[in-house]
Amino acid sequence: MKRVAILGASGYTGAEVRRLLRSHPEIQVDLAMTARANHEPAAPPLPYDHAVQPLDLDKLKYVDGVFVCAPHGASATLAAAALERDSVVVDLSADFRLRDPDVYAAAYGVEHPVPGLLADATYGLTEHARAQVAASRLVANPGCYPTSILLPLLPLLHADLLDLSIPIVADATSGISGAGKTPNDKTLFGNRHDNTAAYGIGTHRHIPEIHQEAGTDRIVFVPHLLPLFRGMLTTIYVTPKSGVGAPDILARLDDAYAVEPFLRVYPHGLPEVNRVQHTNFCDIGVASAGPCVVLVSAIDNLVKGAAGQAIQNMNLMLGLDEEAGLP
Amino acid sequence: MKRVAILGASGYTGAEVRRLLRSHPEIQVDLAMTARANHEPAAPPLPYDHAVQPLDLDKLKYVDGVFVCAPHGASATLAAAALERDSVVVDLSADFRLRDPDVYAAAYGVEHPVPGLLADATYGLTEHARAQVAASRLVANPGCYPTSILLPLLPLLHADLLDLSIPIVADATSGISGAGKTPNDKTLFGNRHDNTAAYGIGTHRHIPEIHQEAGTDRIVFVPHLLPLFRGMLTTIYVTPKSGVGAPDILARLDDAYAVEPFLRVYPHGLPEVNRVQHTNFCDIGVASAGPCVVLVSAIDNLVKGAAGQAIQNMNLMLGLDEEAGLP
Amino acid sequence: MKRVAILGASGYTGAEVRRLLRSHPEIQVDLAMTARANHEPAAPPLPYDHAVQPLDLDKLKYVDGVFVCAPHGASATLAAAALERDSVVVDLSADFRLRDPDVYAAAYGVEHPVPGLLADATYGLTEHARAQVAASRLVANPGCYPTSILLPLLPLLHADLLDLSIPIVADATSGISGAGKTPNDKTLFGNRHDNTAAYGIGTHRHIPEIHQEAGTDRIVFVPHLLPLFRGMLTTIYVTPKSGVGAPDILARLDDAYAVEPFLRVYPHGLPEVNRVQHTNFCDIGVASAGPCVVLVSAIDNLVKGAAGQAIQNMNLMLGLDEEAGLP
Amino acid sequence: MKRVAILGASGYTGAEVRRLLRSHPEIQVDLAMTARANHEPAAPPLPYDHAVQPLDLDKLKYVDGVFVCAPHGASATLAAAALERDSVVVDLSADFRLRDPDVYAAAYGVEHPVPGLLADATYGLTEHARAQVAASRLVANPGCYPTSILLPLLPLLHADLLDLSIPIVADATSGISGAGKTPNDKTLFGNRHDNTAAYGIGTHRHIPEIHQEAGTDRIVFVPHLLPLFRGMLTTIYVTPKSGVGAPDILARLDDAYAVEPFLRVYPHGLPEVNRVQHTNFCDIGVASAGPCVVLVSAIDNLVKGAAGQAIQNMNLMLGLDEEAGLP
Repeated sequence: MKRVAILGASGYTGAEVRRLLRSHPEIQVDLAMTARANHEPAAPPLPYDHAVQPLDLDKLKYVDGVFVCAPHGASATLAAAALERDSVVVDLSADFRLRDPDVYAAAYGVEHPVPGLLADATYGLTEHARAQVAASRLVANPGCYPTSILLPLLPLLHADLLDLSIPIVADATSGISGAGKTPNDKTLFGNRHDNTAAYGIGTHRHIPEIHQEAGTDRIVFVPHLLPLFRGMLTTIYVTPKSGVGAPDILARLDDAYAVEPFLRVYPHGLPEVNRVQHTNFCDIGVASAGPCVVLVSAIDNLVKGAAGQAIQNMNLMLGLDEEAGLP
Repeated sequence: MKRVAILGASGYTGAEVRRLLRSHPEIQVDLAMTARANHEPAAPPLPYDHAVQPLDLDKLKYVDGVFVCAPHGASATLAAAALERDSVVVDLSADFRLRDPDVYAAAYGVEHPVPGLLADATYGLTEHARAQVAASRLVANPGCYPTSILLPLLPLLHADLLDLSIPIVADATSGISGAGKTPNDKTLFGNRHDNTAAYGIGTHRHIPEIHQEAGTDRIVFVPHLLPLFRGMLTTIYVTPKSGVGAPDILARLDDAYAVEPFLRVYPHGLPEVNRVQHTNFCDIGVASAGPCVVLVSAIDNLVKGAAGQAIQNMNLMLGLDEEAGLP
Repeated sequence: MKRVAILGASGYTGAEVRRLLRSHPEIQVDLAMTARANHEPAAPPLPYDHAVQPLDLDKLKYVDGVFVCAPHGASATLAAAALERDSVVVDLSADFRLRDPDVYAAAYGVEHPVPGLLADATYGLTEHARAQVAASRLVANPGCYPTSILLPLLPLLHADLLDLSIPIVADATSGISGAGKTPNDKTLFGNRHDNTAAYGIGTHRHIPEIHQEAGTDRIVFVPHLLPLFRGMLTTIYVTPKSGVGAPDILARLDDAYAVEPFLRVYPHGLPEVNRVQHTNFCDIGVASAGPCVVLVSAIDNLVKGAAGQAIQNMNLMLGLDEEAGLP
Repeated sequence: MKRVAILGASGYTGAEVRRLLRSHPEIQVDLAMTARANHEPAAPPLPYDHAVQPLDLDKLKYVDGVFVCAPHGASATLAAAALERDSVVVDLSADFRLRDPDVYAAAYGVEHPVPGLLADATYGLTEHARAQVAASRLVANPGCYPTSILLPLLPLLHADLLDLSIPIVADATSGISGAGKTPNDKTLFGNRHDNTAAYGIGTHRHIPEIHQEAGTDRIVFVPHLLPLFRGMLTTIYVTPKSGVGAPDILARLDDAYAVEPFLRVYPHGLPEVNRVQHTNFCDIGVASAGPCVVLVSAIDNLVKGAAGQAIQNMNLMLGLDEEAGLP
């Protein structure tokens, strides 16, 4: 049995890691810690829930792996502390996703706290970095939007099927859990219920991450918030090279992901958010629309887009079955 | 006081026309009729609600105007009957939107019932056809998706600001009321709540309508269903011609719509669905995103996308103030 | 044309008063003021929206009526200031609802700021206090829960039809707008969406208000929060006196409210929240359930439960038609 | 490994049994069958989903247990067929819940198809019938509403703590999944979203079941539909006997359920639906409200209210760990 700690256990992603690990056959959560001053839940502390403790980094020396679920900036420092204590780390924040500290500073508005570690980090889009993840001691868990965009796009870019003189449009929609657990105008029920809106056009922090991993800046990304809690649907408009059609795109994806346990390429029809909620699946559909081919991907932003992919990575890093404990 | 009839009064758009006309100062609803066999609402028949009557076309000779809210196919025949009885007609179905009966037959799967009337119909996107609507006896009320796409796009296309060698992407999201009132798998609460999905990619019936009115088939349109009842948000990705930027696009829209009572072009920020629900507004925002300029439009699909625009048109046809009775 | 001011215009009830008054034929909003430091909406300031100004009480001398929509405590002081400047006042907070300042202090945890005004205030449950409201200069607008409970119950209590040896159970459900606009754990989308919960059992601040106006403390009231924005459904379990049945209860309600413009007693069937949203109606249904008779009432908590009833009262106080401007 | 069949696998409860059994360590689903003519899901048949087959009762002889999830009436016949083929049966319909066939006929409007089996059936409220369930070959799985009402009430009734001269009020709210998967006016998104309503007052089919198992008809039950998919919150108003208070009630419940794996009695605070969704828990809270004590229970209507409790029962009937495979 492997032992892990969760740092930043009071947010949505930390709570989701805990929830998923409850039924993991080979990982037990020894520590769930938070830096939040007032971290006690409003609800009664049931004996069935593990208590969340105040942060105490010295305890990390007794665990095999650490999930860092803290806000960006704070996460990098926590990850460094865990690495010093000989633990492997999956960092769910943005702190180790961008290779260039200047790009990080521009996107996140602060200097990177431990830029020396950036070179050691593996970008953990598992299906495209399996061997590196398994060999790594520090994995940057991908953002939810980048996961939903890169999984359908990477096989097509790698096979050079797309006409990149035409911009790729990635129109994404996310459940509100993606906006975090802090009460504010963005997470207020009255502002989100029965409503939808685009945000962060041209400025969203996931844009440099998407461009870095895709190897091209020809992807235009616009996120939207949906009136639901968990789930992400992304509709991607690509223009294939001459002679390439939707069936070729579908065949390429099918070929790339045929043996992947968590990727389901649809032979026909389209994914919907409710087919992937509470699962680690990324479902992908393909359709033709005039000059474009349209890719639709669906994930649970808290699972494949965060906690589930993090456990998938941790499984590899700890030498366990990649699928262990994942729904 | 002008007198009108509503044919197809038991569906969502018919009910919305009735609801809006309750506070109209110069139009009264004399007749609300339906062809549905079982048109009685499950709820008790309150004295405050006008009863919906079975269809009786002879009664139409006593009204000044007719709103036809029946399904496509049936609507054309009803509209023809109303015109014969000397009433002006706003048809909210798709029956008079497409000028070419062959395109209609291809999109809707049936021959047009009265193709001879097609030449008499005006496409009633009010802000772009005000004079023709006022002079017309038969107005085809635009579809909800086309309204949300054409209002932001037409001024840009007319001013030749866009590089049409790059496809325009119109990614649209609609509340479930757009799928109609008939209980089926598409309108089932369990399939729509907490869910979102794309549909009709490359095949949706509004595509030829959008292409016809835009004057170009370079628009790729994908609709999605949102877990809310009323509202439509459309995100449009255009590539401006060289030398044209987001500020030029914004200035053009601002100029085109400055005096329009129901169009609000945002100087900054973006529209949200909950700013237009229950109103006849179309709100439009503009933002820059890499090689694209992004237009976001928001309407209430049942008001500006259907009943509200229909009343706006009827007001013009009956010689009333265009804004009368509209929220 | 009467001129009014709205104090506390940035909250949900203040915004609803403004929204409703936009189409009022005889009242215009001259002033919309707030004490909130940062009262500018996040969305762009459209020319169509009246700006909300910082609080300046001296301007109140130029208006005929004032709607006070501030939090309790602050409202009483604002109301006093408005009365001094010769305006009539409808106070939408709880500050003038309880006649006994000790009961107020116990329920709200602060001393009443202007206890000397309590005797001048009329409890404005309009249908039961029409003449007093019309003659009053200070009206305490009822709470949303008390409105939904008292309207069905008062005629039965006044006619002495109920066996009060058995407690009356009032099980109420409210949309989240009732919890206010401040972002906190209670109004967080992630805590309210797809969720329901009881709260304030035995301690809710509306309990003494209900008991005072019903003239009995034999009413057990439990509120719940529903995953919707506006609307309130209350299910009330009463035990009739021997020989009294559901038909007698229905007849009594029907008789009491037959001529009321905003009360609809159902001859059969039951009210639903979506039949009253965005209206000033209170719908009431009656059914038999073993030893109990069950009353179900539905209101829009922001309209009949707040802003609509406030306008109804203001109409009376300013000598206007009671129904003017109300949907 | 035990082998089971699911009959009626295309409805919500059948699908939930399948979903839960996917991670059951000792039960595998050999057969998932349905009598629905058109049972293929609209979504593409993914290789990961077990196909649902047309009904073929002869195949039942190869399984150890059968879950019957068909509509009432049909279920009884299927259960009888399974018993004949030597399988144990958990019936999730209402067919074996009522001991008296006349009560069944009155509630369900049809004669019971196999009244001779009624005496063999065990009412499977697991925590109150553990030994009988383990020894039974036919278990009637309790209704969702009865489960949410009986679990908090039975220990109090058995200990004679309540004054039954005063009616017990059980005000219950259910997610829409409780209304089934058939598209109709009751399950239409447009009728349920942003809405709530009471229904079946005095006539709901669960009333005789509740009265039978509580051993008293002094329980007044009113159900409501909530705008969410899964979850049930029930608020129960009891009047304790003289000298009995909320702490005594809490102590009794705590004592009764201290060792139960799926029942959580709150020492303070109240359950919410989102604390039990997707789990087999029944959470119970207690609070004082004037003359009444209020019990609040929360379950997932599809899990503890249906599929989860059914698996709990099947585990016992097959000699497995009662908690096996349950979240």
